[in-house]
Amino acid sequence: MATFDPVLPESYRQAEYLMLGNLTPQVQMRVLRQLKRRPKLVMLDTMNFWMDTALGDLKKVLKKVDVLTINDEEARQLSGEHSLVKAAKTIHKMGPKYLVIKKGEHGALLFNAKSVFFAPALPLTDVVDPTGAGDTFAGGFAGWLAKTGDLSFGNMKRAVIYGSAMASFCVEKFSIERLKGLTPAMIQKRVQRFADLVHFQI
Amino acid sequence: MATFDPVLPESYRQAEYLMLGNLTPQVQMRVLRQLKRRPKLVMLDTMNFWMDTALGDLKKVLKKVDVLTINDEEARQLSGEHSLVKAAKTIHKMGPKYLVIKKGEHGALLFNAKSVFFAPALPLTDVVDPTGAGDTFAGGFAGWLAKTGDLSFGNMKRAVIYGSAMASFCVEKFSIERLKGLTPAMIQKRVQRFADLVHFQI
Repeated sequence: MATFDPVLPESYRQAEYLMLGNLTPQVQMRVLRQLKRRPKLVMLDTMNFWMDTALGDLKKVLKKVDVLTINDEEARQLSGEHSLVKAAKTIHKMGPKYLVIKKGEHGALLFNAKSVFFAPALPLTDVVDPTGAGDTFAGGFAGWLAKTGDLSFGNMKRAVIYGSAMASFCVEKFSIERLKGLTPAMIQKRVQRFADLVHFQI
Repeated sequence: MATFDPVLPESYRQAEYLMLGNLTPQVQMRVLRQLKRRPKLVMLDTMNFWMDTALGDLKKVLKKVDVLTINDEEARQLSGEHSLVKAAKTIHKMGPKYLVIKKGEHGALLFNAKSVFFAPALPLTDVVDPTGAGDTFAGGFAGWLAKTGDLSFGNMKRAVIYGSAMASFCVEKFSIERLKGLTPAMIQKRVQRFADLVHFQI
Protein backbone atom coordinates (compact mmCIF):
# COMPACT_ATOMS: atom_id res chain seq x y z
CA MET A 1 0.00 0.00 0.00
CA ALA A 2 2.75 2.41 0.96
CA THR A 3 4.35 2.05 -2.45
CA PHE A 4 1.16 2.66 -4.43
CA ASP A 5 1.66 6.07 -5.96
CA PRO A 6 -0.98 6.85 -8.58
CA VAL A 7 -0.09 9.32 -11.30
CA LEU A 8 -3.06 11.22 -12.72
CA PRO A 9 -3.30 11.45 -16.51
CA GLU A 10 -2.91 15.02 -17.72
CA SER A 11 -6.61 15.20 -18.65
CA TYR A 12 -7.68 14.45 -15.07
CA ARG A 13 -5.62 17.23 -13.50
CA GLN A 14 -8.20 19.93 -14.17
CA ALA A 15 -11.12 18.01 -12.64
CA GLU A 16 -13.69 20.29 -11.02
CA TYR A 17 -15.22 17.55 -8.90
CA LEU A 18 -12.89 15.19 -7.08
CA MET A 19 -13.99 12.11 -5.14
CA LEU A 20 -11.11 10.65 -3.17
CA GLY A 21 -11.99 6.99 -2.63
CA ASN A 22 -11.25 5.03 0.51
CA LEU A 23 -7.44 4.57 0.38
CA THR A 24 -4.60 5.66 2.69
CA PRO A 25 -4.85 9.37 3.53
CA GLN A 26 -1.32 9.77 2.17
CA VAL A 27 -2.41 8.55 -1.27
CA GLN A 28 -5.50 10.75 -1.13
CA MET A 29 -3.25 13.74 -0.40
CA ARG A 30 -0.88 12.88 -3.24
CA VAL A 31 -3.77 12.68 -5.69
CA LEU A 32 -5.16 16.00 -4.49
CA ARG A 33 -1.74 17.66 -4.96
CA GLN A 34 -1.58 16.60 -8.61
CA LEU A 35 -4.55 18.80 -9.54
CA LYS A 36 -3.59 22.01 -11.30
CA ARG A 37 -6.10 24.09 -9.38
CA ARG A 38 -8.35 23.58 -6.42
CA PRO A 39 -11.47 21.69 -7.59
CA LYS A 40 -14.90 23.22 -7.01
CA LEU A 41 -15.68 20.34 -4.69
CA VAL A 42 -13.45 17.79 -3.00
CA MET A 43 -15.19 14.74 -1.52
CA LEU A 44 -13.47 12.09 0.56
CA ASP A 45 -14.48 8.64 1.70
CA THR A 46 -12.55 6.95 4.51
CA MET A 47 -12.98 4.30 7.20
CA ASN A 48 -12.18 3.26 10.76
CA PHE A 49 -8.96 1.48 9.67
CA TRP A 50 -7.33 4.79 8.67
CA MET A 51 -8.55 6.41 11.89
CA ASP A 52 -6.78 3.62 13.80
CA THR A 53 -3.55 3.61 11.80
CA ALA A 54 -3.09 7.00 10.10
CA LEU A 55 -5.12 9.55 12.05
CA GLY A 56 -2.54 12.34 11.71
CA ASP A 57 -2.42 12.02 7.92
CA LEU A 58 -6.20 11.72 7.77
CA LYS A 59 -6.60 14.97 9.70
CA LYS A 60 -4.18 16.70 7.32
CA VAL A 61 -6.14 15.72 4.22
CA LEU A 62 -9.49 16.48 5.91
CA LYS A 63 -8.43 20.13 6.11
CA LYS A 64 -8.56 20.23 2.30
CA VAL A 65 -11.89 18.45 1.91
CA ASP A 66 -15.41 19.87 1.40
CA VAL A 67 -17.51 16.72 1.86
CA LEU A 68 -16.64 13.78 4.07
CA THR A 69 -18.62 10.52 3.73
CA ILE A 70 -18.33 7.99 6.57
CA ASN A 71 -20.65 5.69 8.50
CA ASP A 72 -22.19 6.41 11.90
CA GLU A 73 -19.69 4.42 13.97
CA GLU A 74 -16.81 6.10 12.13
CA ALA A 75 -18.32 9.54 12.77
CA ARG A 76 -18.41 8.65 16.47
CA GLN A 77 -14.83 7.38 16.42
CA LEU A 78 -13.44 10.38 14.52
CA SER A 79 -15.21 12.93 16.74
CA GLY A 80 -15.26 11.15 20.10
CA GLU A 81 -18.96 12.06 20.36
CA HIS A 82 -21.84 9.59 20.52
CA SER A 83 -24.50 12.07 19.42
CA LEU A 84 -24.27 12.44 15.65
CA VAL A 85 -25.31 16.09 15.99
CA LYS A 86 -22.29 16.75 18.21
CA ALA A 87 -20.09 14.55 16.00
CA ALA A 88 -21.00 16.68 13.00
CA LYS A 89 -20.05 19.90 14.81
CA THR A 90 -16.66 18.44 15.77
CA ILE A 91 -15.99 17.12 12.26
CA HIS A 92 -16.92 20.46 10.63
CA LYS A 93 -14.07 22.01 12.66
CA MET A 94 -11.67 19.48 11.11
CA GLY A 95 -12.33 20.93 7.64
CA PRO A 96 -15.30 19.39 5.82
CA LYS A 97 -18.19 21.87 5.43
CA TYR A 98 -20.47 18.96 4.62
CA LEU A 99 -20.68 15.62 6.34
CA VAL A 100 -22.58 12.63 4.96
CA ILE A 101 -23.15 9.90 7.54
CA LYS A 102 -24.08 6.64 5.84
CA LYS A 103 -26.16 4.19 7.88
CA GLY A 104 -26.70 1.42 5.31
CA GLU A 105 -30.23 0.01 5.56
CA HIS A 106 -31.07 2.87 7.96
CA GLY A 107 -30.46 5.67 5.46
CA ALA A 108 -28.06 8.62 5.45
CA LEU A 109 -27.72 12.01 7.12
CA LEU A 110 -26.33 15.18 5.53
CA PHE A 111 -25.03 17.93 7.82
CA ASN A 112 -23.70 21.38 7.17
CA ALA A 113 -22.99 23.91 9.93
CA LYS A 114 -26.63 24.99 10.16
CA SER A 115 -28.84 22.23 8.82
CA VAL A 116 -29.44 18.52 8.78
CA PHE A 117 -31.18 16.40 6.16
CA PHE A 118 -32.18 12.77 6.41
CA ALA A 119 -32.48 10.45 3.41
CA PRO A 120 -34.14 7.10 4.08
CA ALA A 121 -33.00 3.80 2.66
CA LEU A 122 -35.59 2.15 0.47
CA PRO A 123 -37.12 -0.94 2.11
CA LEU A 124 -36.25 -3.65 -0.42
CA THR A 125 -37.86 -7.03 -0.98
CA ASP A 126 -34.52 -8.67 -1.75
CA VAL A 127 -31.02 -7.58 -0.84
CA VAL A 128 -28.71 -9.89 -2.75
CA ASP A 129 -25.30 -8.35 -2.07
CA PRO A 130 -24.43 -5.11 -0.26
CA THR A 131 -20.87 -5.08 -1.68
CA GLY A 132 -20.16 -1.78 -3.41
CA ALA A 133 -23.19 0.05 -2.01
CA GLY A 134 -21.01 2.73 -0.37
CA ASP A 135 -18.98 3.37 -3.52
CA THR A 136 -22.16 3.40 -5.62
CA PHE A 137 -23.62 5.95 -3.22
CA ALA A 138 -20.48 8.09 -3.61
CA GLY A 139 -20.69 7.83 -7.39
CA GLY A 140 -24.34 8.82 -7.51
CA PHE A 141 -23.76 11.67 -5.07
CA ALA A 142 -20.71 13.09 -6.86
CA GLY A 143 -22.20 12.45 -10.29
CA TRP A 144 -25.34 14.43 -9.50
CA LEU A 145 -23.32 17.39 -8.25
CA ALA A 146 -20.92 17.32 -11.19
CA LYS A 147 -23.81 17.09 -13.65
CA THR A 148 -25.79 19.96 -12.14
CA GLY A 149 -22.93 22.17 -10.93
CA ASP A 150 -25.16 23.41 -8.11
CA LEU A 151 -23.56 23.30 -4.68
CA SER A 152 -26.49 24.69 -2.67
CA PHE A 153 -27.67 22.71 0.34
CA GLY A 154 -30.95 21.99 -1.44
CA ASN A 155 -29.05 20.36 -4.30
CA MET A 156 -26.73 18.53 -1.90
CA LYS A 157 -29.90 16.95 -0.49
CA ARG A 158 -30.88 15.81 -3.97
CA ALA A 159 -27.37 14.41 -4.42
CA VAL A 160 -27.81 12.29 -1.26
CA ILE A 161 -31.11 10.99 -2.64
CA TYR A 162 -29.54 10.14 -6.03
CA GLY A 163 -26.64 8.42 -4.24
CA SER A 164 -29.11 6.46 -2.10
CA ALA A 165 -31.15 5.52 -5.16
CA MET A 166 -28.07 4.23 -6.99
CA ALA A 167 -27.01 2.25 -3.90
CA SER A 168 -30.50 0.74 -3.67
CA PHE A 169 -30.07 -0.64 -7.19
CA CYS A 170 -26.54 -1.87 -6.47
CA VAL A 171 -27.60 -4.24 -3.68
CA GLU A 172 -30.44 -5.86 -5.64
CA LYS A 173 -28.07 -8.04 -7.71
CA PHE A 174 -24.48 -9.24 -7.57
CA SER A 175 -21.60 -7.06 -8.73
CA ILE A 176 -22.65 -4.38 -11.22
CA GLU A 177 -25.37 -6.52 -12.82
CA ARG A 178 -28.27 -4.33 -11.68
CA LEU A 179 -26.48 -1.10 -12.56
CA LYS A 180 -25.58 -2.14 -16.11
CA GLY A 181 -29.14 -2.08 -17.42
CA LEU A 182 -30.29 1.18 -15.82
CA THR A 183 -31.81 4.01 -17.83
CA PRO A 184 -32.32 7.62 -16.68
CA ALA A 185 -36.09 6.94 -16.53
CA MET A 186 -35.55 4.01 -14.17
CA ILE A 187 -33.39 6.16 -11.93
CA GLN A 188 -36.00 8.95 -11.92
CA LYS A 189 -38.72 6.46 -10.99
CA ARG A 190 -36.63 5.17 -8.10
CA VAL A 191 -35.91 8.69 -6.86
CA GLN A 192 -39.68 9.29 -6.88
CA ARG A 193 -40.09 6.25 -4.60
CA PHE A 194 -37.75 7.92 -2.10
CA ALA A 195 -39.89 11.06 -2.24
CA ASP A 196 -43.12 9.07 -1.75
CA LEU A 197 -41.61 7.04 1.09
CA VAL A 198 -41.18 10.04 3.40
CA HIS A 199 -44.05 12.20 2.18
CA PHE A 200 -46.66 13.31 4.71
CA GLN A 201 -48.82 16.39 5.18
CA ILE A 202 -49.25 18.21 8.48
CA MET B 1 -47.87 -12.44 35.81
CA ALA B 2 -50.23 -15.33 35.17
CA THR B 3 -52.46 -14.21 38.04
CA PHE B 4 -52.69 -10.58 36.88
CA ASP B 5 -56.26 -10.20 35.68
CA PRO B 6 -57.17 -6.57 35.07
CA VAL B 7 -60.83 -5.59 35.31
CA LEU B 8 -61.79 -2.61 33.14
CA PRO B 9 -63.90 0.09 34.81
CA GLU B 10 -67.35 0.33 33.26
CA SER B 11 -66.48 3.67 31.63
CA TYR B 12 -63.59 2.11 29.71
CA ARG B 13 -65.63 -0.68 28.15
CA GLN B 14 -66.95 1.42 25.30
CA ALA B 15 -63.53 2.72 24.22
CA GLU B 16 -63.31 3.35 20.48
CA TYR B 17 -59.50 3.28 20.39
CA LEU B 18 -57.73 0.54 22.29
CA MET B 19 -53.96 0.30 22.78
CA LEU B 20 -52.99 -3.03 24.30
CA GLY B 21 -49.64 -2.45 25.99
CA ASN B 22 -46.80 -4.94 26.08
CA LEU B 23 -48.08 -7.63 28.50
CA THR B 24 -48.77 -11.35 28.12
CA PRO B 25 -50.98 -12.03 25.09
CA GLN B 26 -53.45 -13.76 27.44
CA VAL B 27 -53.95 -10.55 29.43
CA GLN B 28 -54.24 -8.55 26.19
CA MET B 29 -56.99 -10.94 25.04
CA ARG B 30 -58.83 -10.72 28.37
CA VAL B 31 -58.81 -6.92 28.19
CA LEU B 32 -60.08 -6.98 24.60
CA ARG B 33 -62.95 -9.30 25.59
CA GLN B 34 -64.19 -6.90 28.25
CA LEU B 35 -65.08 -4.26 25.64
CA LYS B 36 -68.81 -4.05 24.93
CA ARG B 37 -68.30 -3.65 21.20
CA ARG B 38 -65.42 -3.94 18.79
CA PRO B 39 -63.37 -0.70 18.97
CA LYS B 40 -62.83 1.33 15.81
CA LEU B 41 -59.12 0.57 16.13
CA VAL B 42 -57.23 -2.00 18.18
CA MET B 43 -53.48 -1.45 18.52
CA LEU B 44 -51.10 -3.90 20.14
CA ASP B 45 -47.52 -3.64 21.33
CA THR B 46 -45.55 -6.80 22.06
CA MET B 47 -41.97 -8.05 22.21
CA ASN B 48 -39.59 -10.96 21.53
CA PHE B 49 -40.17 -12.44 25.02
CA TRP B 50 -43.82 -13.27 24.18
CA MET B 51 -42.80 -14.65 20.79
CA ASP B 52 -40.42 -17.00 22.64
CA THR B 53 -42.81 -18.05 25.42
CA ALA B 54 -46.41 -17.54 24.26
CA LEU B 55 -46.43 -17.54 20.47
CA GLY B 56 -49.71 -19.45 20.17
CA ASP B 57 -51.56 -16.98 22.39
CA LEU B 58 -49.90 -14.06 20.63
CA LYS B 59 -51.10 -15.32 17.24
CA LYS B 60 -54.65 -15.66 18.61
CA VAL B 61 -54.78 -12.06 19.80
CA LEU B 62 -53.07 -10.78 16.62
CA LYS B 63 -56.10 -11.99 14.64
CA LYS B 64 -58.17 -9.36 16.45
CA VAL B 65 -55.72 -6.49 16.05
CA ASP B 66 -55.61 -3.67 13.47
CA VAL B 67 -52.19 -2.18 14.20
CA LEU B 68 -49.16 -4.06 15.51
CA THR B 69 -46.14 -2.10 16.79
CA ILE B 70 -42.86 -4.01 17.20
CA ASN B 71 -39.19 -3.39 16.50
CA ASP B 72 -37.25 -4.58 13.45
CA GLU B 73 -35.68 -7.65 15.07
CA GLU B 74 -39.08 -8.69 16.43
CA ALA B 75 -40.67 -8.29 13.00
CA ARG B 76 -37.97 -10.61 11.64
CA GLN B 77 -38.52 -13.13 14.45
CA LEU B 78 -42.31 -13.13 14.15
CA SER B 79 -42.29 -13.52 10.36
CA GLY B 80 -39.15 -15.58 9.80
CA GLU B 81 -38.17 -13.10 7.08
CA HIS B 82 -35.08 -10.88 7.07
CA SER B 83 -36.45 -8.38 4.55
CA LEU B 84 -38.84 -6.06 6.37
CA VAL B 85 -40.94 -5.81 3.19
CA LYS B 86 -41.44 -9.58 3.24
CA ALA B 87 -41.91 -9.56 7.04
CA ALA B 88 -44.74 -7.04 6.65
CA LYS B 89 -46.51 -9.23 4.08
CA THR B 90 -46.31 -12.25 6.39
CA ILE B 91 -47.50 -10.29 9.44
CA HIS B 92 -50.46 -8.79 7.53
CA LYS B 93 -51.67 -12.37 6.99
CA MET B 94 -51.62 -12.90 10.78
CA GLY B 95 -54.27 -10.21 11.24
CA PRO B 96 -52.92 -6.66 11.57
CA LYS B 97 -53.79 -4.48 8.56
CA TYR B 98 -51.15 -2.02 9.69
CA LEU B 99 -47.66 -2.74 10.93
CA VAL B 100 -45.43 -0.18 12.62
CA ILE B 101 -41.79 -1.24 12.82
CA LYS B 102 -39.92 0.86 15.38
CA LYS B 103 -36.18 1.23 14.85
CA GLY B 104 -35.31 3.58 17.72
CA GLU B 105 -32.71 6.14 16.64
CA HIS B 106 -33.16 4.90 13.06
CA GLY B 107 -36.83 5.90 12.78
CA ALA B 108 -39.98 3.89 12.10
CA LEU B 109 -41.72 2.23 9.17
CA LEU B 110 -45.47 2.00 8.60
CA PHE B 111 -46.80 -0.71 6.29
CA ASN B 112 -50.26 -1.55 5.02
CA ALA B 113 -50.92 -4.12 2.30
CA LYS B 114 -50.13 -1.67 -0.50
CA SER B 115 -47.89 1.09 0.85
CA VAL B 116 -44.94 1.86 3.04
CA PHE B 117 -44.07 5.07 4.85
CA PHE B 118 -40.85 5.95 6.61
CA ALA B 119 -40.64 8.36 9.55
CA PRO B 120 -37.13 9.43 10.55
CA ALA B 121 -35.93 9.80 14.10
CA LEU B 122 -34.84 13.32 14.93
CA PRO B 123 -31.04 13.60 15.33
CA LEU B 124 -30.77 14.88 18.91
CA THR B 125 -27.91 16.72 20.59
CA ASP B 126 -28.47 14.90 23.89
CA VAL B 127 -30.21 11.62 24.58
CA VAL B 128 -30.46 11.38 28.35
CA ASP B 129 -32.61 8.27 28.81
CA PRO B 130 -34.40 6.15 26.17
CA THR B 131 -36.62 4.49 28.80
CA GLY B 132 -40.27 4.84 27.86
CA ALA B 133 -39.66 5.99 24.28
CA GLY B 134 -41.62 3.05 22.83
CA ASP B 135 -44.62 3.62 25.10
CA THR B 136 -44.49 7.36 24.43
CA PHE B 137 -44.49 6.62 20.71
CA ALA B 138 -47.54 4.39 21.17
CA GLY B 139 -49.31 7.10 23.19
CA GLY B 140 -48.63 9.80 20.61
CA PHE B 141 -49.64 7.50 17.75
CA ALA B 142 -52.89 6.32 19.37
CA GLY B 143 -53.66 9.79 20.76
CA TRP B 144 -53.42 11.41 17.34
CA LEU B 145 -55.76 8.82 15.78
CA ALA B 146 -58.27 9.04 18.66
CA LYS B 147 -58.24 12.84 18.50
CA THR B 148 -58.74 13.06 14.74
CA GLY B 149 -60.89 9.96 14.20
CA ASP B 150 -59.38 9.62 10.72
CA LEU B 151 -58.10 6.12 9.90
CA SER B 152 -56.86 6.84 6.35
CA PHE B 153 -53.28 5.86 5.50
CA GLY B 154 -52.40 9.55 5.14
CA ASN B 155 -53.50 10.17 8.71
CA MET B 156 -51.79 7.01 9.96
CA LYS B 157 -48.59 8.54 8.58
CA ARG B 158 -49.22 11.68 10.61
CA ALA B 159 -49.84 9.49 13.66
CA VAL B 160 -46.42 7.88 13.22
CA ILE B 161 -44.85 11.35 13.03
CA TYR B 162 -46.68 12.52 16.17
CA GLY B 163 -45.64 9.34 17.97
CA SER B 164 -42.04 9.88 16.86
CA ALA B 165 -42.16 13.53 17.96
CA MET B 166 -43.45 12.59 21.42
CA ALA B 167 -40.76 9.90 21.73
CA SER B 168 -38.09 12.44 20.74
CA PHE B 169 -39.13 14.60 23.69
CA CYS B 170 -39.27 11.61 26.06
CA VAL B 171 -35.59 10.71 25.64
CA GLU B 172 -34.29 14.26 26.20
CA LYS B 173 -34.76 14.08 30.00
CA PHE B 174 -35.24 11.41 32.66
CA SER B 175 -38.65 9.89 33.33
CA ILE B 176 -41.55 12.10 32.25
CA GLU B 177 -39.73 15.38 33.04
CA ARG B 178 -39.56 16.57 29.44
CA LEU B 179 -43.15 15.56 28.68
CA LYS B 180 -44.66 17.35 31.68
CA GLY B 181 -43.97 20.86 30.41
CA LEU B 182 -45.03 20.37 26.78
CA THR B 183 -47.60 22.60 25.09
CA PRO B 184 -49.45 21.91 21.81
CA ALA B 185 -47.34 24.65 20.18
CA MET B 186 -44.12 22.93 21.23
CA ILE B 187 -45.37 19.65 19.78
CA GLN B 188 -46.36 21.34 16.51
CA LYS B 189 -42.94 22.93 16.25
CA ARG B 190 -41.25 19.58 16.75
CA VAL B 191 -43.49 17.92 14.14
CA GLN B 192 -42.42 20.66 11.72
CA ARG B 193 -38.77 19.70 12.37
CA PHE B 194 -39.60 16.16 11.23
CA ALA B 195 -41.13 17.57 8.05
CA ASP B 196 -38.09 19.78 7.40
CA LEU B 197 -35.67 16.94 8.10
CA VAL B 198 -36.82 14.83 5.13
CA HIS B 199 -37.90 17.58 2.76
CA PHE B 200 -36.30 17.73 -0.68
CA GLN B 201 -37.44 18.75 -4.15
CA ILE B 202 -36.83 16.72 -7.28
